[in-house]
Amino acid sequence: MNKVSRIHCKALQSKIMTAEEAAALISSGDNVGMSGFTGSGYPKAVPLALAKRIETANSAGEKFRIGVWTGASTAPELDGALAKVDGVEMRLPYQSDPTCRKRINAGEMEYIDIHLSHVAQFVWFGFLGKLNIAVVEVAGILEDGRLIPSSSIGNNKTWLEQADKVILEVNSWQDSRLEGMHDIYYGTNLPPNRQPIPMVHPHDRIGDPYLHCDPDKVIAIIETYSPDRNSDFSAPDEKSRLIAGHILEFLEHEVKRGRLPKNLLPLQSGVGNIANAVMAGLNHGPFENMTAYTEVLQDGMLELLHSGKLVSASATAFSLSDKALVQLYAHLDEYKDKIILRPQEISNHPEIIRRLGVIAMNGMIEADIYGNVNSTHVMGSAIMNGIGGSGDFARNAYISIFMTPSQAKDGQVSCIVPMVSHVDHTEHDVQILVTEQGLADLRGLSPTQRAKVIIENCAHPNFKPALRDYHKRALEHSFGKHTPHLLDEALSWHQRYLTTGQM
Amino acid sequence: MNKVSRIHCKALQSKIMTAEEAAALISSGDNVGMSGFTGSGYPKAVPLALAKRIETANSAGEKFRIGVWTGASTAPELDGALAKVDGVEMRLPYQSDPTCRKRINAGEMEYIDIHLSHVAQFVWFGFLGKLNIAVVEVAGILEDGRLIPSSSIGNNKTWLEQADKVILEVNSWQDSRLEGMHDIYYGTNLPPNRQPIPMVHPHDRIGDPYLHCDPDKVIAIIETYSPDRNSDFSAPDEKSRLIAGHILEFLEHEVKRGRLPKNLLPLQSGVGNIANAVMAGLNHGPFENMTAYTEVLQDGMLELLHSGKLVSASATAFSLSDKALVQLYAHLDEYKDKIILRPQEISNHPEIIRRLGVIAMNGMIEADIYGNVNSTHVMGSAIMNGIGGSGDFARNAYISIFMTPSQAKDGQVSCIVPMVSHVDHTEHDVQILVTEQGLADLRGLSPTQRAKVIIENCAHPNFKPALRDYHKRALEHSFGKHTPHLLDEALSWHQRYLTTGQM
Repeated sequence: MNKVSRIHCKALQSKIMTAEEAAALISSGDNVGMSGFTGSGYPKAVPLALAKRIETANSAGEKFRIGVWTGASTAPELDGALAKVDGVEMRLPYQSDPTCRKRINAGEMEYIDIHLSHVAQFVWFGFLGKLNIAVVEVAGILEDGRLIPSSSIGNNKTWLEQADKVILEVNSWQDSRLEGMHDIYYGTNLPPNRQPIPMVHPHDRIGDPYLHCDPDKVIAIIETYSPDRNSDFSAPDEKSRLIAGHILEFLEHEVKRGRLPKNLLPLQSGVGNIANAVMAGLNHGPFENMTAYTEVLQDGMLELLHSGKLVSASATAFSLSDKALVQLYAHLDEYKDKIILRPQEISNHPEIIRRLGVIAMNGMIEADIYGNVNSTHVMGSAIMNGIGGSGDFARNAYISIFMTPSQAKDGQVSCIVPMVSHVDHTEHDVQILVTEQGLADLRGLSPTQRAKVIIENCAHPNFKPALRDYHKRALEHSFGKHTPHLLDEALSWHQRYLTTGQM
Repeated sequence: MNKVSRIHCKALQSKIMTAEEAAALISSGDNVGMSGFTGSGYPKAVPLALAKRIETANSAGEKFRIGVWTGASTAPELDGALAKVDGVEMRLPYQSDPTCRKRINAGEMEYIDIHLSHVAQFVWFGFLGKLNIAVVEVAGILEDGRLIPSSSIGNNKTWLEQADKVILEVNSWQDSRLEGMHDIYYGTNLPPNRQPIPMVHPHDRIGDPYLHCDPDKVIAIIETYSPDRNSDFSAPDEKSRLIAGHILEFLEHEVKRGRLPKNLLPLQSGVGNIANAVMAGLNHGPFENMTAYTEVLQDGMLELLHSGKLVSASATAFSLSDKALVQLYAHLDEYKDKIILRPQEISNHPEIIRRLGVIAMNGMIEADIYGNVNSTHVMGSAIMNGIGGSGDFARNAYISIFMTPSQAKDGQVSCIVPMVSHVDHTEHDVQILVTEQGLADLRGLSPTQRAKVIIENCAHPNFKPALRDYHKRALEHSFGKHTPHLLDEALSWHQRYLTTGQM
């Protein structure tokens, strides 16, 4: 356990208590704003204690459930524990926990999937109801009560300001040198009083390194010493390397044509193995002095910072493997000026993403032959994680790239389909599709032109003939030939998979 | 014809010629950037002359086709004439002409449907290929060569800057008092050199009242005296009045709850009879000192300016009936300071729409029970007009409202369906749905909760039982129960309509 307390504010020291005591201050029916973004900076003790309390209550025949609002995904100690005891009435805006997902898809838990840049403002607008209580992990508390943020920021500023009551977890496992790395913008406002956000470069600092919180609202402080959920990445497999290769070739081509500066434009990259492979590719590529304006800083980006290819990275959270974490802290003094963590309403803000001209690279579940993208729903009905920030970036990017292997489920599923079973990103927001087969550049193409390029460049050879056949017959028999479809067949691939296990 | 020439620049007077002579300067294969937005400010002479030239060429066995880029929809003299002679290879970013639509849906003309805020930047980025020539209507030319914009601005700034050659139509039918009403923002730039757009109020002037154009690029000037295509609106019918009533009631409710200021927030309203009815409703409603930040200024908004309920209106184009036009010019001195016309990249800019907190009100073709909206495709394949600015506004609005009568085709079609046949606005971007039946407030609701509210509040009674039945069975049998769907049935309503003429 930590030897030196991180709670330097005397007025708050009296509020130190156990997680169980703090959990007792949360009532059934409360909407609880928790910290946490992709396994970083979530509260580690109170949710577990609360889960126990809920389990006891539910065993006694009471119905104890809360609303859980976060930055994004969290960890087994939060989403997992609360979902396991059926303690969540409504979850928003993003999750990736297996138990949580299972409950949602069983119809046992309500879930609202929201653009991550919309969440804070919806709460401020009063659109999601009252936020009763905030449970926020911090890395320390200054003498004057200001809070040193943890390894993610997410919606913490909003939770601390909007909640009636605040519970803080002070986690001394978090490196104290995080102090100074954050940039909390306090210039947001409600319409009609909003001002331009004064950022013109991804590494502009426009805020305060500390979170502010009215000390009178703090009802409990818990001291913890617990690691973040740091997930390891697989080494890039062949398909990921091929996808990364296609993207690199494309970026080089764009630079040659004068459509991108030599050092590219700020990179945004979703989380996962393919994204990591792209970063690894960039590390061996020709581009220097790159910047990142993204949601999550993961291993590959840290490598780019380490090699000097990336001169700065702005995000709202870390999402590192254990190995990368060791590297981060071994070189923290070197990285510190290069990394900025911001509230997610800023990291994902349309105004900034569009102004900076971000290159958006996001994963997907499937795309259709006309360029519509499904990022969230398996077979049109089962939520995987959520849209996250992909829409914030894709819509406002300089160029929007979506990527996936061309097949899933050992080749039983084609990730290029006649019609996506759920749409998260419309044809209007997708410029580039990439699979290990190749890259489809959809810019300046009509739907039918797009179909040809997507089928020929991106589909797996096993599915190409059937896709060509669908498109050909649709061109002949479709009601309208702008976006030709056979409606009695458009979703038949998904239905066939559900019935036979094979598309 | 006009008595006094509007061309005060001596250097340009030598370039005056006939429309036929000017049309001869356009080559097959050219991409031509034309002015024009919802029937306002489009060139009236050159496209007609060009259509004749194309007809002659095509009769002679040549293949003469051009790319036509505009602000938005134009008129029979432009889209209609060129489509009739099969002169358009590629059309973007929006159209509403019957002949044009017919060709697109017959697979005879390529069409790209683009968010209106994306068009100018895509051209600047080089994503749509080279713009060869601009054909732009203006209301006059100053001595120093600056141009007085016409009744729309659209993408004219970009066309004039990006095209190698420029043809100007100087239309003296346009009231000379338009001078000074426009605000052309010249502060845009390419990433990474973009700056915040310095606008914090819908009536801030941040630019220049004139368009700039390198006189050396001007290859032809044509003098015209031709009216805009001014379409009459039907008087609000019963359904439109009911829809307007639901929206007004909702807005009053939001003000009471403190979720909207008393004078609301800047209004955006799509074009059409329902939108006009909403404006008429607002004219008799309780709100004062309203503002508008919208794409098109139509009759209803002019009425609001006239009554004083609306203190200012920003748009990129007029779209008025003949009657309203008379009113506009009868009171122009009174309105002049209250109306601002801007480039569509500014009128529709995500940065500004989000900052101002616009109330977005747009029409649609259909919505599904989970809140996804189809704005563009009839039966999933035939384009109606295009997405226009609806996505720019819906995604970035303070609150996003979509509206439609609950039924179409004399009751044969339900506008609330199990699954939309095409998605333009995902569940993430739709907060309020309204039909004459009622209003569904989707804020803070999960997909299944949304389905109940949409079916009960918005669907026509004739279709309610079938929708309830679909949702009930989907809840039982869907693969995942987050967004329950029966994939072999989800699009069957549309298919049934195509087969039997009835959903």
